[in-house]
Amino acid sequence: MAAAEPKSINLNADLGESFGAWTMGADEALLGVVASANLACGFHGGDPEVMRRSVAAAVARGVSIGAHPSYPDLQGFGRRRLDMAPREIEALVAYQVGALAGIAAMEGARVSHVKPHGALNNVACAERPVAAAIARAVRAVDPALILLAPACSELLAAGREAGCRVAVEVFADRAYTDDGQLVPRGRPGAFVHGAAASLAHVLRMLEEGALVSLSGKRLPTAIDSICVHGDNAEAVAVAAALRRGLEGAGYAIRPLPDLPTTTS
Amino acid sequence: MAAAEPKSINLNADLGESFGAWTMGADEALLGVVASANLACGFHGGDPEVMRRSVAAAVARGVSIGAHPSYPDLQGFGRRRLDMAPREIEALVAYQVGALAGIAAMEGARVSHVKPHGALNNVACAERPVAAAIARAVRAVDPALILLAPACSELLAAGREAGCRVAVEVFADRAYTDDGQLVPRGRPGAFVHGAAASLAHVLRMLEEGALVSLSGKRLPTAIDSICVHGDNAEAVAVAAALRRGLEGAGYAIRPLPDLPTTTS
Amino acid sequence: MAAAEPKSINLNADLGESFGAWTMGADEALLGVVASANLACGFHGGDPEVMRRSVAAAVARGVSIGAHPSYPDLQGFGRRRLDMAPREIEALVAYQVGALAGIAAMEGARVSHVKPHGALNNVACAERPVAAAIARAVRAVDPALILLAPACSELLAAGREAGCRVAVEVFADRAYTDDGQLVPRGRPGAFVHGAAASLAHVLRMLEEGALVSLSGKRLPTAIDSICVHGDNAEAVAVAAALRRGLEGAGYAIRPLPDLPTTTS
Amino acid sequence: MAAAEPKSINLNADLGESFGAWTMGADEALLGVVASANLACGFHGGDPEVMRRSVAAAVARGVSIGAHPSYPDLQGFGRRRLDMAPREIEALVAYQVGALAGIAAMEGARVSHVKPHGALNNVACAERPVAAAIARAVRAVDPALILLAPACSELLAAGREAGCRVAVEVFADRAYTDDGQLVPRGRPGAFVHGAAASLAHVLRMLEEGALVSLSGKRLPTAIDSICVHGDNAEAVAVAAALRRGLEGAGYAIRPLPDLPTTTS
Repeated sequence: MAAAEPKSINLNADLGESFGAWTMGADEALLGVVASANLACGFHGGDPEVMRRSVAAAVARGVSIGAHPSYPDLQGFGRRRLDMAPREIEALVAYQVGALAGIAAMEGARVSHVKPHGALNNVACAERPVAAAIARAVRAVDPALILLAPACSELLAAGREAGCRVAVEVFADRAYTDDGQLVPRGRPGAFVHGAAASLAHVLRMLEEGALVSLSGKRLPTAIDSICVHGDNAEAVAVAAALRRGLEGAGYAIRPLPDLPTTTS
Repeated sequence: MAAAEPKSINLNADLGESFGAWTMGADEALLGVVASANLACGFHGGDPEVMRRSVAAAVARGVSIGAHPSYPDLQGFGRRRLDMAPREIEALVAYQVGALAGIAAMEGARVSHVKPHGALNNVACAERPVAAAIARAVRAVDPALILLAPACSELLAAGREAGCRVAVEVFADRAYTDDGQLVPRGRPGAFVHGAAASLAHVLRMLEEGALVSLSGKRLPTAIDSICVHGDNAEAVAVAAALRRGLEGAGYAIRPLPDLPTTTS
Repeated sequence: MAAAEPKSINLNADLGESFGAWTMGADEALLGVVASANLACGFHGGDPEVMRRSVAAAVARGVSIGAHPSYPDLQGFGRRRLDMAPREIEALVAYQVGALAGIAAMEGARVSHVKPHGALNNVACAERPVAAAIARAVRAVDPALILLAPACSELLAAGREAGCRVAVEVFADRAYTDDGQLVPRGRPGAFVHGAAASLAHVLRMLEEGALVSLSGKRLPTAIDSICVHGDNAEAVAVAAALRRGLEGAGYAIRPLPDLPTTTS
Repeated sequence: MAAAEPKSINLNADLGESFGAWTMGADEALLGVVASANLACGFHGGDPEVMRRSVAAAVARGVSIGAHPSYPDLQGFGRRRLDMAPREIEALVAYQVGALAGIAAMEGARVSHVKPHGALNNVACAERPVAAAIARAVRAVDPALILLAPACSELLAAGREAGCRVAVEVFADRAYTDDGQLVPRGRPGAFVHGAAASLAHVLRMLEEGALVSLSGKRLPTAIDSICVHGDNAEAVAVAAALRRGLEGAGYAIRPLPDLPTTTS
């Protein structure tokens, strides 16, 4: 990388998870923080009207959009595993990515990345056949799509193997095990609390070019994006502080397709 | 049109309307008859797996594929009107067209036309605001898409007004009123029975370049496609005989995007 | 009625309209105001878990429960008409009433009334065949069920004709036409604003034993229940003030099955 | 049992699994064979209209009806596991049992048993917390309901523990392991083919009062019902032959609530 090249990083969050008469999330506030939005595609949230409004809002803020496909489970918000065969999952993902692309086209926008949602993401991070099915779908629907996957996950490995463009994400508010997995929610130290700690956590990983586990172990990895949450006002405030901290540390916050590492 | 140009016409039918463990229709037989297939997109039939198999089967037979979007009504098979606002319908159609496009991409295929299903089609043929919403969605998702609409319908008029590529269809087995509408099902003469009568009905309209109503009135119209049905073995046999009759009369049966009238 | 019999009236509201991860309504506050709750049954809101929690909360507050069946339309929150045949509607209503009864049984409770939701209620109030289908379903599922229907509606007439127990409701916040219908939302005077005006509106109708239209016309009717809303904090405050006002005027607020008029 | 008491047994099968425009199964033929029908409740098949027709057809043939609740999975026909918490499953089952009870009431019928469907049944047979949730729901909705469960299953044990009335079923066309479980489908000898072998298999178990495994091991158990299938004409023919064989061996084929073992 040339000396003139500024450091850049992406911030991503899940948005567009309202459905019909039900609203969810602080989308408007989050769109002022992140550079890429993962939009629900109708299977855990996000009916066609919600998708359209979410795309329009993201476009208006210069935020790039990605599909956030889920198991078909509105009641469970996509958080419950459904035992689908890899071939079924491949079609499920292609359907949802295409659906968002259709909606996006109405707003003059393009879907530029894909990040699985909830239980589907969890399964894909741990089980290669599911990960490979998702990667095949992403690659087949549009080779320009970026698969956004957690560092050290099976999903990331499957995406690379399938020849997908990939972007690697880490979590601002979660600690890692020595295997590069998230420390389970019940365990001590699972969460990184508050803006200052999150910023320190993220900056250290960015500077070391590695996940840094709870015990201090370094697991070298590319890092393209930081995943933040907007479940409540406090989470949004932490995310906003993280953004300011990253900018203060010299990072340009850029949409996924504009990162030097993902530009094809 | 130059003297060497052979006469050409399209045959279309609804396919891919199975869902999960439930099968419907004589798809395999119909794919040997028609040149374009209207494929269910998950809202009245056609889950992602069914869509994928249907696309693959159509591609293998050289049959062009179209989206067949519906009101969200699996139980009613899309045959019941749902009072959606035009803006909701616009998003509904873009979603379904995009979803099929995503599935089609996995099979190396493209969606080349759109034809609304069931009650949505009926409403769009009679009510301009709904027709215009569908036309806007089709135009916005992909300007290359052909809107397949019945002769003398509001949907056809809206498609032309929106600047869509359009293809005009007539029905092989239904008689027309003097207004160019289908004779309602309950009325005498509503249906054209059998292969010979259907062929004569269609050939007369093609040769006159007009709908010919039950009373003999001529309503001049372009005719690009004949809609046939495959609900049962007899219907498929009639459709097959119609195709042979058209070929015998010098017509080449061509997919919608290959017709001289729809080629852009 | 003996001299010693105090005046009694019911207050009802729609509750239990959350779904999965999405919440809606100020249920807890409203349960302190009303004496009967219309609970969503899964078709426009209210998944089985939400239903269970809603039943338990109502039981804990001494609030009687009713089924609030809807067209199958989660995305549209049951506010869009779906053209279902009366026979289909009959089965639709029986299904939802039974489903809530199953859930209620787990909590040791009984469903004591039925009030259709949204577009289904609107259609039933205006179209007798739909009203009759609903009344038949209510009567057939359990003759002890009370059909809660607006004054001067086809639904009320159909309920009486079918031999249902009925309860007649009026709206605290809506004005009536000279035909006994709600003044349409767009028209001047459609809404009765604020607690004082609502209380005066309701007390006048109760004392006169009649709907009193915007123009002052009296339409005699039994009045068993006042429908209130809890869409926001202000609405709940108005409802609470209405209750206090009615109690101050000597009315006992009682669950539907405990009213002298509905006791069988 | 007194000498005069004839031997009696139940035959049960899954019915009512059509949905909307899609039909499935040879219900009419099967209703002439079995004495109890497990009816889909809308979550894997069986919309309210199908349920009503199925109840009416069963009643007309003297066949007792049971609820056949499923995970919410129309596309997967309830054959895919969904990771629901036991509390969610409890509400899910109560909802579906109640829904069928509502429909049955319209036809003057009562739901007399419950048998989980597909993946939900498989999970309940192997995992006690899920089995216990189902048993609690059945007991709570109506203590008169019979839980129909496979011999040697966790579901049966949970039903007994919860104080449910239970009926024990064995399969006419499946072999058992030495643990009393079904021999997995892929393994040699998993299926019992043809009417003669099925009859011998069943009669031996009835006479021994035990499951008899593939290796010949006896696992003593009550046997109240034989589960048969009606997926195709051959299956129905085998089921009919089995019934004739049982009758020829002196067994009266009786609905579940009329068996001496389940009568309460």
